[in-house]
Amino acid sequence: MAIVQTKEYSPLTEQTAIELAYQLELFPKEAELTAEEIGDGNLNYVFRIQANNGKKIIVKQALPYAKVVGESWPLTLHRATIEANALIKHGEFVPHLVPKVYHTDSVLAVTVMEDLSHLTISREGLINGESYPRLSEDIGQYLAHTLFHTSDYALHPFEKKKLVHSFHNPELCKITEDLVFTDPFFNSDTNDFEDTLQPLVEALWEDNELKLETAKLKKSFLTETEALVHGDLHTGSIFASDTTTKVIDPEFAYYGPIGFDIGQFIANLTFQAIVREEGNKQVIYDHIQNTWTTFESHFSDLWQTHSIDSYANVEGYLKFVLEKSFQDAVGFAGCELIRRTIGLAHVKDLDLISNDEKRIEAKKKTIQTGRKWIIERSSIQTIDQLINVLIESN
Amino acid sequence: MAIVQTKEYSPLTEQTAIELAYQLELFPKEAELTAEEIGDGNLNYVFRIQANNGKKIIVKQALPYAKVVGESWPLTLHRATIEANALIKHGEFVPHLVPKVYHTDSVLAVTVMEDLSHLTISREGLINGESYPRLSEDIGQYLAHTLFHTSDYALHPFEKKKLVHSFHNPELCKITEDLVFTDPFFNSDTNDFEDTLQPLVEALWEDNELKLETAKLKKSFLTETEALVHGDLHTGSIFASDTTTKVIDPEFAYYGPIGFDIGQFIANLTFQAIVREEGNKQVIYDHIQNTWTTFESHFSDLWQTHSIDSYANVEGYLKFVLEKSFQDAVGFAGCELIRRTIGLAHVKDLDLISNDEKRIEAKKKTIQTGRKWIIERSSIQTIDQLINVLIESN
Repeated sequence: MAIVQTKEYSPLTEQTAIELAYQLELFPKEAELTAEEIGDGNLNYVFRIQANNGKKIIVKQALPYAKVVGESWPLTLHRATIEANALIKHGEFVPHLVPKVYHTDSVLAVTVMEDLSHLTISREGLINGESYPRLSEDIGQYLAHTLFHTSDYALHPFEKKKLVHSFHNPELCKITEDLVFTDPFFNSDTNDFEDTLQPLVEALWEDNELKLETAKLKKSFLTETEALVHGDLHTGSIFASDTTTKVIDPEFAYYGPIGFDIGQFIANLTFQAIVREEGNKQVIYDHIQNTWTTFESHFSDLWQTHSIDSYANVEGYLKFVLEKSFQDAVGFAGCELIRRTIGLAHVKDLDLISNDEKRIEAKKKTIQTGRKWIIERSSIQTIDQLINVLIESN
Repeated sequence: MAIVQTKEYSPLTEQTAIELAYQLELFPKEAELTAEEIGDGNLNYVFRIQANNGKKIIVKQALPYAKVVGESWPLTLHRATIEANALIKHGEFVPHLVPKVYHTDSVLAVTVMEDLSHLTISREGLINGESYPRLSEDIGQYLAHTLFHTSDYALHPFEKKKLVHSFHNPELCKITEDLVFTDPFFNSDTNDFEDTLQPLVEALWEDNELKLETAKLKKSFLTETEALVHGDLHTGSIFASDTTTKVIDPEFAYYGPIGFDIGQFIANLTFQAIVREEGNKQVIYDHIQNTWTTFESHFSDLWQTHSIDSYANVEGYLKFVLEKSFQDAVGFAGCELIRRTIGLAHVKDLDLISNDEKRIEAKKKTIQTGRKWIIERSSIQTIDQLINVLIESN
């Protein structure tokens, strides 16, 4: 990768994004380039640069602030470096499941990467009834490979600790600590829920058992450096088609518990399991099940073939690690279900339901399922049990 | 603190150590200084500088290698910076329990600090029959304050993660990972045990249950950034008298599980509980008990008065944290008992017993107690139960 020396940060324009593409020699000199800003402008600029021969690339630039529901607050540009480094690191293990990175510039907070606009964001597709036959197989593999290969089971302790050190990401972790693990469980200003849900939400705030179990999950998120997690693996961070899956946007990447990504992904599938009509739910249940079973089988294979841990062959240790990861995932999924319903950042799966009664009904289900998963996670021991708990209240 | 600029590392001599003391203006210009190297020369130089008026200071310099049982291998000089920073950080919370640091120099790997030669190393004193009436009260307080105040319960997440980052200590952690958690449980070259113990040691290597539980403890050590631990809190790292206690040598400091320091200290008291004659054991049992109860009561007080964790007041959360810390401590204590008996680094408490039969008997007890604590730690729920398990086989 070429390194372009820049003196200071400034926001790109369509013109300067094109100039950067020429400088990087990603297109022939004679190519005519056009640029279009296709991001939502809340957190990043996303320029799609296209040549007259059809070739396309993405120039993504972090903005020094975040806009969410009208608020604007400063946000570290370092997240662009984290994102690029996570794409590169995870790409070592699953190159077919992440975009190629062509160039990074930490001063400009720019990542130049493969264009994926032939795919759709899986949240949008799922809402529109797509079933994405490869989705859970690919994400299960992504989880197994990225999490195993960045863990102490696969890496020399120096290499692992070097990665922990370089994925130091306190500002974005704090967003998760607040918005996923704290605010929804207290009467916080950031919360955002419909009036009808007020009694249910107040019951959560009074629910000591729920808060105790959530405190334990937050503690895991704060203290357990098990693997390099994506940190924000919802269906909006996944491009998909019937044949391809690509995971994007790992700006929240840091060393955390293995169950975190698994749980967030399962929760975001669960929104679909809840909002879909009866006959269309099964494909989502199957995706949830297949995510775990694929993860479990690939992680187990990697453990047998690639583990450098002295204790890898001790009977029961892999089982312990998988059980812990599953239990954590169930709890983290529960947190995600609740926070996406009553916290600051919602999901369209729920909010786009125009029928008031159905929408409220779905939101009640996500809250109740989330609560159950958090509280009962130590007795939910298999993915079948988890799905049964979901089906019972769905 | 003054900063002396130096260009490169070179070992001090008595003369250059004195020059450094003058430069730092730690003595009046007219004072006549003498220096004496009082370290064992295996890892560090320790110069005691004394003025003709009686004032003394210590100039400690890390050497770029370690010598253990005749072997010599390179060892990072960065450990001097870790040690100094840990003394300073822990000194913010328990200034009366650590030596004062007057100056640090990361290039020279030098720490200039308070002289403590009016005290004795507590391992030596305990072996000679001292009872150190303040020892467990002081160490219990040290543990509560240093561990609480560096945890997520007390610190803003940015501040805590900054500390995690700055106490990045992979090389010294690896020594613990190998010598405490791995080698003694396998047929490793570093192990060192008496022939008579061979059958018992081989039984450990074949003991799947023990290895599984040790794997879990090693995983905690590798992944849980709960607090800034000392990392090597044995009785040889503690200066003591009847009225004073000072904890030294935190070069292994890093962010790890709260139970680690507690367990190592309890294990090192346990060697005394095992080797002492019947009538002299009770004072050690009392120290073990008082270490935990003092830690528990001070940690609980700090939690009530100083916690900034949103979940601090959730019923059951403090109890959960204390129970987890206790269970971890019991397991880590078990590892320490075993590794100090059959691993690379022994303790004099055992090795100085000249009567062969008594020495072997004591070593068998430390191995068996260690095994029991590791395996049964989830059912050993109080400090009284722990002591009962010890007494039963003692």
